[in-house]
This record gives sequence, C-alpha cells and structure tokens, in this order.
Amino acid sequence: MSAASSLRLPYAGRRALITGGLGFIGSNLARRLVELGARVTVVDSLIPEYGGNRRNLAGLAGRVRVHVADVRDWPRLPSLVRGQDYLFNLAGQTSHMDSMTDPQTDLDINGRAQLAILEACRAHNPGIRIVFASTRQIYGRPDYLPVDERHPLRPVDVNGINKLAGESYHLLYSRVHGLRSTALRLTNTIGPRMRVKDARQTFVGVWIRCLVEGRPFEVWGGEQRRDFTYVDDAVEAFLLAAARPEAVGEIFNLGGPRPVTLQRLAELLVELNHGGAFAVREFPADRKKIDIGDFYSDDRRIGRRLGWRPRTDLRTMLVRTLEYYRRELRHYV
Amino acid sequence: MSAASSLRLPYAGRRALITGGLGFIGSNLARRLVELGARVTVVDSLIPEYGGNRRNLAGLAGRVRVHVADVRDWPRLPSLVRGQDYLFNLAGQTSHMDSMTDPQTDLDINGRAQLAILEACRAHNPGIRIVFASTRQIYGRPDYLPVDERHPLRPVDVNGINKLAGESYHLLYSRVHGLRSTALRLTNTIGPRMRVKDARQTFVGVWIRCLVEGRPFEVWGGEQRRDFTYVDDAVEAFLLAAARPEAVGEIFNLGGPRPVTLQRLAELLVELNHGGAFAVREFPADRKKIDIGDFYSDDRRIGRRLGWRPRTDLRTMLVRTLEYYRRELRHYV
Repeated sequence: MSAASSLRLPYAGRRALITGGLGFIGSNLARRLVELGARVTVVDSLIPEYGGNRRNLAGLAGRVRVHVADVRDWPRLPSLVRGQDYLFNLAGQTSHMDSMTDPQTDLDINGRAQLAILEACRAHNPGIRIVFASTRQIYGRPDYLPVDERHPLRPVDVNGINKLAGESYHLLYSRVHGLRSTALRLTNTIGPRMRVKDARQTFVGVWIRCLVEGRPFEVWGGEQRRDFTYVDDAVEAFLLAAARPEAVGEIFNLGGPRPVTLQRLAELLVELNHGGAFAVREFPADRKKIDIGDFYSDDRRIGRRLGWRPRTDLRTMLVRTLEYYRRELRHYV
Repeated sequence: MSAASSLRLPYAGRRALITGGLGFIGSNLARRLVELGARVTVVDSLIPEYGGNRRNLAGLAGRVRVHVADVRDWPRLPSLVRGQDYLFNLAGQTSHMDSMTDPQTDLDINGRAQLAILEACRAHNPGIRIVFASTRQIYGRPDYLPVDERHPLRPVDVNGINKLAGESYHLLYSRVHGLRSTALRLTNTIGPRMRVKDARQTFVGVWIRCLVEGRPFEVWGGEQRRDFTYVDDAVEAFLLAAARPEAVGEIFNLGGPRPVTLQRLAELLVELNHGGAFAVREFPADRKKIDIGDFYSDDRRIGRRLGWRPRTDLRTMLVRTLEYYRRELRHYV
C-alpha cells in the first residue's frame, strides 16, 4: 500500500479543522485532506500581514467550510472544535521582526490563543487528535548540527519564546489532561501558496517574487547553511502525525534534503528561473541580533518512528514554486 | 568590608522599585533596602490568593511608598518605572495548581505583564537595573541532581511554562535591547512573611500554620528530597545580583543547605516546635501529575561569580519562621 493510499483510511469521511487554514501550509493541507475525502473546515483571520489568502483555496468552493475568525476570539472556539476528529493547529504569527516590535501581539496569538484552543478542546472535544505546527526557532543558535530534538531550547527572539510556550502547552495538555497532541518542529518550508509579498513568513518568498517580477533580490550574509522542506512533504508529516497513535505526546523535527548556503540557494534559483540577479549584503543590525547562523535539522526521529522522510529534492521544490508564482503572482502581491 | 556594609554603597540614596513588594520575598527585600538607605517603592496587587499582605511592611509607614496596583494594568507601568535605579521584579502567580485550573490568568501575570514591564523599562527607563525572580519549576523533573543552570528546561505545569517565558523575555531584552537584567532561579524559599494561609506559595507555609494552631498537618509522599533557602539569604542574592555588573544577562540558581526529605523536614519542625503531629499521605492524583520528585539546586555558579552562598542552616531558618508566626499568625490567616 502506498503512503498516499494508506492515508485515505484515517481521513475519508472524517472531520478536520485547520487553524490558519487559508495560509501557506494550512491551505496545502486542506487541499490534500479534500483529496483524501475528509470534511474540512478552515479558520483563518486573514490579517493582511499574515499568511492567509483566499486564493490558496481557489477551485475548492463548496468543498471546504471557511470561517474568517481570529483564534484570539475565544468565544468562537468551542463551536469550531466541537465534533471534529482532527485539529491541525497552524494559526500563528510567524514574523521574527514583528515579534520584536510588537511582542504582545505575538504572545496573544502564539501563546494565549493556543491555551484557549486547548482549553476549548479539553472542555468540548477531549477526544480530538491535535497536531501543532511548532518551529526550529525555539532551538535558537545551534550548539551542534544537525539539530535533533534533544538540543537545548534557547530561543533568540520573542517569537521563539512564545512558540516554545505554545508547543509546551500542547505537550502538557497531552501528558496531564489526556488530550492527544503531537508537535512538529518545522524548518524553512517552501512551495506554492507561501507568502511572497515580503519576508514575514520566509525570506525565500520575497526572493521568488523579485525573480518573477524581473527585479534583483538581496541575500543577507549568504554563508548561512539552511535546510528546506517542500510543502507537500510537510503536509504528509501532519497527516502521518495525526493518524498514528504512537505519535501522541511526541515532538518531531521536520527536515529537508541536504542543506545549502543561502548564496548557493540564490544561485540555484537564478539558474532555474533562467535569469535573475541578486546582491549579497551585510546583515542589517537589528536582524543580526536575532539571527541563528547555520541551521539544519536532524529529522531521523520521525523517519524511525513514523516512516516520514523529505521526498522532494531542492531543484524540484524550487521549480514547482517558481512555476506556481509565474502563473499566480498577481494574487499574492 | 562585610557583605552587609559593601551593599550600602550601591543602595544608599538610590531608588528601587519592587513588584510584588507586599509579598513574601518582596517585603523582606523592601525592609533590607530601607536599612541600606534606599528609597523604596513597592507595587502589589493584594489579590487575596497571592502573597501580598500589608502586615509584611508593618513598622515602615512613611518609609516605603506603596502602590496597590496590578502589573497587568499596563498604563500605570511607565510612571512606576520612570526614575528608578533598580527594579526587583517579583510579581507573579505562584500556585502550580491554580495555573492548571486557570492557565490564562497565570499567563497574563507571568507572561504578558512581564513583557509589558520590560517594554515600559525599554521605553521609559532603559538604564534601569533589573533582577527577575525566576523559579526552579522551569527545570521540571530533574535528569540529575543537584540541578545546575545547564540542566534542560522541561516545565511540568502551566506555571513553569509561563515563568520560563517570563525569564526568557528578561534575558532576551538584555541581549537584544541592552536592558541590564539578571534572572535568579529560586528554589523553596521560607521565612517570616511567607504565605501560610494555604499551600499556594509553599507547602511549608501551611505546615507551619497547622503547627502554630496546634493541628496536625499532612505530608504528601514524604520521600522527596528538597532544598530550602532562607529568605534573608535570598534577599542578599537579589541585592548582589543588582549591584554587580558581571551579573547582567546572567542566570543563577539559588540553593540552600543540604537537602532533606519532606518527612525529615516535618519531623524537624515538630521537634523545633516542641510538639505537633503530621500524617504521611499519598499524593492526590491531580498533584501527582505535576510533581517533580526529588529536587535540589546546584548553586555553585552564583558562589563563584558573585560570592553568594546560603548562610542560614535549616534549623535556624525553621526556628525563626516558627517564632515569627507564633507572634504574627493572626495577621496571616
């Protein structure tokens, strides 16, 4: 049985709620769940600075229930979680810089709202299966590479501190209150439907936008090595984590194919775009303070435990992403 | 020069703000600062479930400025921090059980309000020297004993998760924004002016109350080993940390004399009280889930770096605490 068909069983006819479901990963996950026969509800605040975009669910009208709602709007949460089999909890504030200039908003979304979601599940749907989108940002600057799940947690910005609290609540509610939740620590994820308007979600987004618009882009530093997960691979990890009982209460890193320097990534993008230009610049001072240097994940644990591995090589993910934005850019800028 | 006289220099005539300053450690710190000639302002919410008690500053009328205010009341923060030389930031929700039944309130006080305090300092008094009262609770169940500052941070309850976020903000604001802050990770602290009405601050409080009232008390488990810091020693650590430039951006455990089992502590209290009784009981199920087992701190780092050590032996701290509550109990129950 292929991985794809083995996932039909747990999802066909089942009800799944996706917070942040009009966002990058959330919308790709919604599309995949619809393919697998699930009954999908998405919640998204559509705050302009965040990842939500109605275009991300284009073509699915009538097949996904969409609630434009903010997870900070607690009174709405009970009716949203009630009756769901799965909660894919991807709503979050992702910008590291915004978390430094507006730390309270970051905490409200990545901390308070997460507690409210878990409390709503505990009171109104304690049997729900939850997968939380955590982030490699909670590790901070690595002591060693690749970074495995036992690496110390020393976040370097407000976003990392609050995402760590959010992840910790999920695991605590699993351990103490019996909610069945799993945390996935995502590294740089790229692919169709990511935010390309600016660097709030990923710097690669704004690079791609510049390439497609025929403008040069800026690479800060350039020597940092990073790993990249293709969004379809990330989506498969969410689906596996929610379907497998042995993942309850666990934390797993996601990773990608071999890490590359940002300079190499930029060169590859220019090559695959058949043209384009970039300038390597020094890190701006305010970003340097919260930069983590080289980072790439050790994803062997989820490989051993759930059989997940990143299947998409770097060239393929970049080609598919460029193709998507050559066609769709006007809906994203 | 004795430790006491060497501390006069940085504090005589200087202005110090203490959040949670009507509470247990905060009020003892306020008393010591007044002795050292500082101009002391305390802020306390006097929420009945927390540690604040006007009796704690008895005899200091006119010598300490008292604001009954909640650190969640952000608009008041700028005027409080402006012009201060020192901020001793001890306001917090301390009950582990309350954090599990009302997690949002714990987050509001131990997370959101901490960010608001730091933002107020950053905007209105960036030169202030800050010492934050953190807790051993952020370590969770120890991997090894004694627990040093490099031990992994795996809090076992909502209070621990939020206190970790609060501590992390303080160190981040030091590193990124140049605020000069230090975090002290307190273990069980006991002494005059602690909360004895119930176990919300420390289980020892309610034991002492029972002893003084001539009633038996309950020891849950009994075999857990713990260490205890006498409040005067903890106060000295706060004063040293704020006065010493090499403590900026640092984290230090506080510890106590040799750890004892809870059963032994109970026996010693009965002996020193010249009478009393206790029953050893199984841990209630809801508390067992968030219990950390044996815990005691390695406090050698603050010894090496700042010359601090716990000076008060266990018998002395228990005798002084019993004496205080034999005289003062009616103001605390």
